Amino acid sequence: MDDRAIGVFDSGMGGLTAVRELIRRLPGEDVVYFGDTGRVPYGGRGAETIIKYARQDVAFLRGFDLKAIVIACGTVSTTALDILTRENAPLPVIGVVEPAARAAVAATRTGRIGLVGTKATIASGAYERTVRRLMPQAVVTARACPLFVPLVENGRYQPGDPLVELLVAEYLAPFREAEVDTLILGCTHYPLLRDAIAAYLGPGVTLISSGAACVDTVARLLEERDMKNAKAQGGEHLYFASDSAQDFGVLGSVFLGQDIQGQARQVAIENY
Amino acid sequence: MDDRAIGVFDSGMGGLTAVRELIRRLPGEDVVYFGDTGRVPYGGRGAETIIKYARQDVAFLRGFDLKAIVIACGTVSTTALDILTRENAPLPVIGVVEPAARAAVAATRTGRIGLVGTKATIASGAYERTVRRLMPQAVVTARACPLFVPLVENGRYQPGDPLVELLVAEYLAPFREAEVDTLILGCTHYPLLRDAIAAYLGPGVTLISSGAACVDTVARLLEERDMKNAKAQGGEHLYFASDSAQDFGVLGSVFLGQDIQGQARQVAIENY
Repeated sequence: MDDRAIGVFDSGMGGLTAVRELIRRLPGEDVVYFGDTGRVPYGGRGAETIIKYARQDVAFLRGFDLKAIVIACGTVSTTALDILTRENAPLPVIGVVEPAARAAVAATRTGRIGLVGTKATIASGAYERTVRRLMPQAVVTARACPLFVPLVENGRYQPGDPLVELLVAEYLAPFREAEVDTLILGCTHYPLLRDAIAAYLGPGVTLISSGAACVDTVARLLEERDMKNAKAQGGEHLYFASDSAQDFGVLGSVFLGQDIQGQARQVAIENY
Repeated sequence: MDDRAIGVFDSGMGGLTAVRELIRRLPGEDVVYFGDTGRVPYGGRGAETIIKYARQDVAFLRGFDLKAIVIACGTVSTTALDILTRENAPLPVIGVVEPAARAAVAATRTGRIGLVGTKATIASGAYERTVRRLMPQAVVTARACPLFVPLVENGRYQPGDPLVELLVAEYLAPFREAEVDTLILGCTHYPLLRDAIAAYLGPGVTLISSGAACVDTVARLLEERDMKNAKAQGGEHLYFASDSAQDFGVLGSVFLGQDIQGQARQVAIENY
């Protein structure tokens, strides 16, 4: 048993979709979440900047007594996982790439797998490398969707919203053409767009949420290493953000599916 | 005569539309530009965060010997102008609000003036207060366009782009209804969308670029105070950004209308 908390971070609100799954699957675990809402989005920035920001995010989280760090951010997972793993050893650092790639390989029947993510995520090639390692015959079609994060962070993700429908159709057309049967949502903001994406691609395409896949890996790791919290329920959840705590509470409640207004606190992340 | 440089800053690339005008109007002036591309966009963030970032931007610029600071950013101009003016006196700090409001009041025939800007700009009410002070009978219709900056920063502003047309129509419909004859583009990113906006609103609506209006004020100030550069041509222009200098050079060349690739340098703005 290990009663230390799990640290989770993301560029903004998106990682809360992974926390939601974490709380559902592991309700006894204590969680500390940091969302870098003062500097979101990460996905269009240069690798050097993303690495700098990710190090600061981790430095803040490590002020807590942690048993694992979850990178609930596709951009950081594809750009800085190796660096963060090395710098924080032996603390386990879990990204979204390997779990989502495994889930996609398990789900596909045809080997035609699609990937959507931020510019930085697609440019890294990290998902393709991992999928091909697990399934050499896989054919991966990848596309950057740089406006999905601003869309979601502005609360625009409902199916039926003409803007959402237009962007979904524009970004996802190549996946229809490539006849993928599985699509990796390689950014933790994208599950908010799941209904719109599913409506466009149809029921024949399995959507893999990278955040949810990542939580599977966390659950297995805690099980294997006998590191679960002694509590089976009632884990404590702390929320921090680098922009207004009040704004985080309002939109974060939507992402998380439960009311956390008044619970978040603000952090001067550039001091870490 | 005063050979010191003019410092200009913005949250990202948008302020380069003002620099373009500055270079055209005052070709002998030396200019130092800082674009906070590592933390763009500002417009959806809380006021406290915007003020913190703006102070750092100014602190960086003040490392140069300046005769004036231009806030080429609607969000900072509406949120932090008073603070920056006070903290940097007697150095003149010129924002975009008063110049654009003056230009709009001079242009309108009906007194029905429209305003588009970021969330923070619209929430501040700064433009409306200034317009009403100059023209008490003016009727101001204001609307936040939170997705215009991500759109432009991702290079999506061409008329004919269905995404651009859809968002322009969505955001600008209230101005057609209100029958404004003048629209203030209250964010320095928006001039890139000028053709698309003009096509939607038609030739009867005068578009006021806040950056260009601001440059009028700078030119008048230098004239009045006899602070022009001794050079009539050949001013030096330095470009700095907080994210990748290379990326800044590529997209910045489009915003500026001249090739600055290889000229920009990167700054760790959080250290200021």
